[in-house]
Amino acid sequence: MSNTVGTIFRFTIFGESHGPAIGVTMEGLPAGLGIDIPALEAFLARRAPGRSDLTTSRNEPDKPVFLSGLNGNVTCGSPLTAVIYNQNAHSGDYAALREVPRPGHADYTAMQKYGKAWNGAGGGQFSGRLTAPLCIAGGICLQLLEKKGIHISAKAERIGGETDPDSFADVIRKAASEGDSVGGVIACRVEGLPVGIGEPMFDGLESRVAQVVFGIPAVKGIEFGSGFAGSDLRGSENNDPFVLANGQIKTETNNHGGILGGISSGMPLAFRVAVKPTPSIAKEQRSVNCGTMEEVRLNIKGRHDPCIVLRAVPCVEAAAAVALYDEMRLGGTSWT
Amino acid sequence: MSNTVGTIFRFTIFGESHGPAIGVTMEGLPAGLGIDIPALEAFLARRAPGRSDLTTSRNEPDKPVFLSGLNGNVTCGSPLTAVIYNQNAHSGDYAALREVPRPGHADYTAMQKYGKAWNGAGGGQFSGRLTAPLCIAGGICLQLLEKKGIHISAKAERIGGETDPDSFADVIRKAASEGDSVGGVIACRVEGLPVGIGEPMFDGLESRVAQVVFGIPAVKGIEFGSGFAGSDLRGSENNDPFVLANGQIKTETNNHGGILGGISSGMPLAFRVAVKPTPSIAKEQRSVNCGTMEEVRLNIKGRHDPCIVLRAVPCVEAAAAVALYDEMRLGGTSWT
Amino acid sequence: MSNTVGTIFRFTIFGESHGPAIGVTMEGLPAGLGIDIPALEAFLARRAPGRSDLTTSRNEPDKPVFLSGLNGNVTCGSPLTAVIYNQNAHSGDYAALREVPRPGHADYTAMQKYGKAWNGAGGGQFSGRLTAPLCIAGGICLQLLEKKGIHISAKAERIGGETDPDSFADVIRKAASEGDSVGGVIACRVEGLPVGIGEPMFDGLESRVAQVVFGIPAVKGIEFGSGFAGSDLRGSENNDPFVLANGQIKTETNNHGGILGGISSGMPLAFRVAVKPTPSIAKEQRSVNCGTMEEVRLNIKGRHDPCIVLRAVPCVEAAAAVALYDEMRLGGTSWT
Amino acid sequence: MSNTVGTIFRFTIFGESHGPAIGVTMEGLPAGLGIDIPALEAFLARRAPGRSDLTTSRNEPDKPVFLSGLNGNVTCGSPLTAVIYNQNAHSGDYAALREVPRPGHADYTAMQKYGKAWNGAGGGQFSGRLTAPLCIAGGICLQLLEKKGIHISAKAERIGGETDPDSFADVIRKAASEGDSVGGVIACRVEGLPVGIGEPMFDGLESRVAQVVFGIPAVKGIEFGSGFAGSDLRGSENNDPFVLANGQIKTETNNHGGILGGISSGMPLAFRVAVKPTPSIAKEQRSVNCGTMEEVRLNIKGRHDPCIVLRAVPCVEAAAAVALYDEMRLGGTSWT
Repeated sequence: MSNTVGTIFRFTIFGESHGPAIGVTMEGLPAGLGIDIPALEAFLARRAPGRSDLTTSRNEPDKPVFLSGLNGNVTCGSPLTAVIYNQNAHSGDYAALREVPRPGHADYTAMQKYGKAWNGAGGGQFSGRLTAPLCIAGGICLQLLEKKGIHISAKAERIGGETDPDSFADVIRKAASEGDSVGGVIACRVEGLPVGIGEPMFDGLESRVAQVVFGIPAVKGIEFGSGFAGSDLRGSENNDPFVLANGQIKTETNNHGGILGGISSGMPLAFRVAVKPTPSIAKEQRSVNCGTMEEVRLNIKGRHDPCIVLRAVPCVEAAAAVALYDEMRLGGTSWT
Repeated sequence: MSNTVGTIFRFTIFGESHGPAIGVTMEGLPAGLGIDIPALEAFLARRAPGRSDLTTSRNEPDKPVFLSGLNGNVTCGSPLTAVIYNQNAHSGDYAALREVPRPGHADYTAMQKYGKAWNGAGGGQFSGRLTAPLCIAGGICLQLLEKKGIHISAKAERIGGETDPDSFADVIRKAASEGDSVGGVIACRVEGLPVGIGEPMFDGLESRVAQVVFGIPAVKGIEFGSGFAGSDLRGSENNDPFVLANGQIKTETNNHGGILGGISSGMPLAFRVAVKPTPSIAKEQRSVNCGTMEEVRLNIKGRHDPCIVLRAVPCVEAAAAVALYDEMRLGGTSWT
Repeated sequence: MSNTVGTIFRFTIFGESHGPAIGVTMEGLPAGLGIDIPALEAFLARRAPGRSDLTTSRNEPDKPVFLSGLNGNVTCGSPLTAVIYNQNAHSGDYAALREVPRPGHADYTAMQKYGKAWNGAGGGQFSGRLTAPLCIAGGICLQLLEKKGIHISAKAERIGGETDPDSFADVIRKAASEGDSVGGVIACRVEGLPVGIGEPMFDGLESRVAQVVFGIPAVKGIEFGSGFAGSDLRGSENNDPFVLANGQIKTETNNHGGILGGISSGMPLAFRVAVKPTPSIAKEQRSVNCGTMEEVRLNIKGRHDPCIVLRAVPCVEAAAAVALYDEMRLGGTSWT
Repeated sequence: MSNTVGTIFRFTIFGESHGPAIGVTMEGLPAGLGIDIPALEAFLARRAPGRSDLTTSRNEPDKPVFLSGLNGNVTCGSPLTAVIYNQNAHSGDYAALREVPRPGHADYTAMQKYGKAWNGAGGGQFSGRLTAPLCIAGGICLQLLEKKGIHISAKAERIGGETDPDSFADVIRKAASEGDSVGGVIACRVEGLPVGIGEPMFDGLESRVAQVVFGIPAVKGIEFGSGFAGSDLRGSENNDPFVLANGQIKTETNNHGGILGGISSGMPLAFRVAVKPTPSIAKEQRSVNCGTMEEVRLNIKGRHDPCIVLRAVPCVEAAAAVALYDEMRLGGTSWT
């Protein structure tokens, strides 16, 4: 069940990095919704590798092929399955890794959990490549949310400790030139979400968004509104006063990040996501050969991003979109 | 579904702050497990109010009454329902709040979502009191995990920006004396979790723990391992080298917080939780009367904690326990 | 999870026959719905024992006590928990059964599954008494469905092989006088269900109704429309021609029982349920003592219904109601 | 959610009759299990059309293509997706049906539910062709159950009212020659299921098997053990005495069909399924043109089975297998 999330709108992600295909099966899309396929492909392109010198040179078009659920480009009421066939797999690059887990990667835990059967080439199902199907589901939900005036937008707020976006490229190139990698923080903002969306307790907006966001590899933290910084404030500082603005109830500030009691307040939903530095680096690292049980030096070859933060930005938008679309459906909003 | 969480071990929390009772219905506990009731009550006492001058004076014993699922103190295989009857409700204190939402609290969003029917006295189901049933479920899971050598322990790491535990009481008293409140950060550590627990993607340990932890009112952030600070590091700094220790594979450091690819690595699971300052403060605040649609000054009376961080510590342990117990069951661990 | 059913409207039944209480926790009822408590109690009375010489003399009022979810008699948006406290438990009657399973009853399988911890007095959670909480959930759903013009009505169609309702009482008394029991068939009909309710495949109306109906102890079969008899017909006989009636599309006959492809056709939903004869009979039976592993003769004492079909009639209505209410919610119908 | 079923082993069926592909995504298969692909293909061939003059002449090999989840023929721990690409689609045959629903078919309810977007060619997702992915999931589960000594076998027990298997072909040919169709009853028997499998109430064996079986198009009834006939018996006749056989507890008869209280008794699980006559017949039928709202005469062309009972036999085995495999996993049985 681990690759499935959602209640009314629910999807399952499948595939491995170097298997025949990766994809997603979605349930709960109403019939009769037109999908803008070129816009979806443009959204997927934001995540795809190979667009600049800052990303891995594995260059695949990530073109979704729709196997079911569409009549032309209109949803027909049955589950929508979309796949991306893997074309550019270099499994030879990974053969040496099987016995020697890469530090910071899921190799070790996957080997322990799945044993020899684990399809670990390229990271298997733990590969960042599996965020492509998440972006297919998310890209469709983004289109549906836009129809209701809801706009989701994320951006890199810090990279390698740097906060000036104009310096991000240099920070990444410098790390890459040293055989190293950097992480960062992504800020996401949702405008236009109506008041009253979200359910109490474990289906609150924080719970649901967090559950999906942590499904993105390399995410290690999430905070809503003032988050960790807010926990150092006094109540009188962190509470957002209710005020009237053009006859509407708003809050003067937005330390609550648009969520009170798990439910949307009508203010912009705001959260930040911590992305760890890419674990696959060229620099020599220490590890253990699980076959011989000897400590070894590991030199990772292959194509790796020195920074995945920029490619993770659309993934965070996608994660927010699938969570919020399902929450709106749970709250009774109709798209037909 | 919002008050329910879990897959094999699953529970639903019910009740409102000033209703007849609060409680929890648990499914999936195997038959034949002895529950140490006094130990459970001692755990609940850590969360209960009225134990010191630092907490609300609402003084209720929080004694669980078991309606089903136990044969004596042994689980009998059917759902376990435990309730705490509400004895010390002062609903008069809250009558004035109905039209004027308290800043930072769920009053406003609940009013918008549920309308006039909302049972908002004392915060209704958004009250921190609803963490008592979470602690009943969590307290039972903590006992079951201990039987497998797994120990969960949380503590306040910061309160009001202060990191010295000896100063916490003064920080809280000072805020209280000024009609204000403070928040803080709770650190939780799980020792003894075997390698291989957790499922990929949306049922990874981060996703599952986060989903439950955000069900605790006032939690606004969570980070695992090096978390947000780690996102500023280089990969070569943040990656934890694999080493041999007494013939076992360990990591030399634990920036990954015991989780790689959503799956436990065998290292201690470590996470931090941001708790916002208590929104209910004595200091006058600005709000809006939703009936007359006028801006008003709000003076909250009643019994409120100037800091809920200390009482939230066992709640975080409970949240981790229910999530991890279910993950171990999903992974095939048996308790019979 | 076994005691839980439903997706948007979801409930969990808890309790054992001779434990402190039986009850139900319901999630997904919208806020603001008035519940007619006297009507609900009247519905529960149809299931309750002790109303005539045809049922067990265990005479309990089955009065529901609401612990949460109601503000007066109006739903407040949080889970609704209702319990019936057990008053009239005679656990002494069952002590002798612990080692000797009653033929046709769940004693044997429960002993094997749950071991010594099983709370088997009175049948534990397998007791027909657990249909009372089902009737609480169902009774509320019946009221909600009536507000949309949907009426569910079941009746005994056969008892002990007899089809004349005027003879049912004599058939039951005769079996009872001989220390025996009878079963029967219940027919259920739902009028007013709009076209288009139900989802394809595993959430089709047949799947969902069947899943709940088989949760009623003693049910061993279900058929929709012409059912088993229809499987002997030719397609040209069993197909229901579409016709126009007052400008509306109807079918001339209703062999499809109001369901095509799992989805309601607008014709009355019709199904039949096979209820086995009460397994607890006074007549001596053969069994095995599971402690000594010897074949024994068993004489069951205690209070048992010679026929549970009549008391099962409202349970079938309740089962249909909870399934259909959830299906309507899944289909987007709103009750607020 | 409608195309998904299961808890630990869970799968989603997707595709439409005349779309690019049909398939299934399965979660919860442990890593390291070898799948016998030729045996799976042989099982699928039992369901496939075109094998004799008794079935539709639509002749497709139904060859599964595995997109994920396998490493060679061994499960690798991630979701297993298998598809069958549609090759032999004749959508022109169905164009005339769009406005005129076929009696006894889902055309009318699907049109009402999904509107113009419904991909109704060939019955869309309501086509019997969607039982092929069910048979992929079921065929894999059958192999896994066999490894535990559990054998599932179904057969046609009645066709067109005839009970002599040697006469079935003649009954079908006669109906076909008259432009008509026949239905029948399938009996399924599970040997080797251990005692104690199944959960109480809504996850009982009857509930779970029924939920999946009713997902097979044309199924209109199910009964376990003595079923409807048993409801006419006395308790003393229908109860199965417990006896000792070679030191093991058995029942002398099996009117309970191997299930007591929803849980397996160790006796063979036995159930019967009513399959309606194929609704698509050559004989002229009456229907309504939903566009012009006029009553019309309908003559169905295209390739249709005069009897689907024989092809439904492996589907019933598949349905039982997926339900029982999940129940065994829920009960804690391990396959690794």
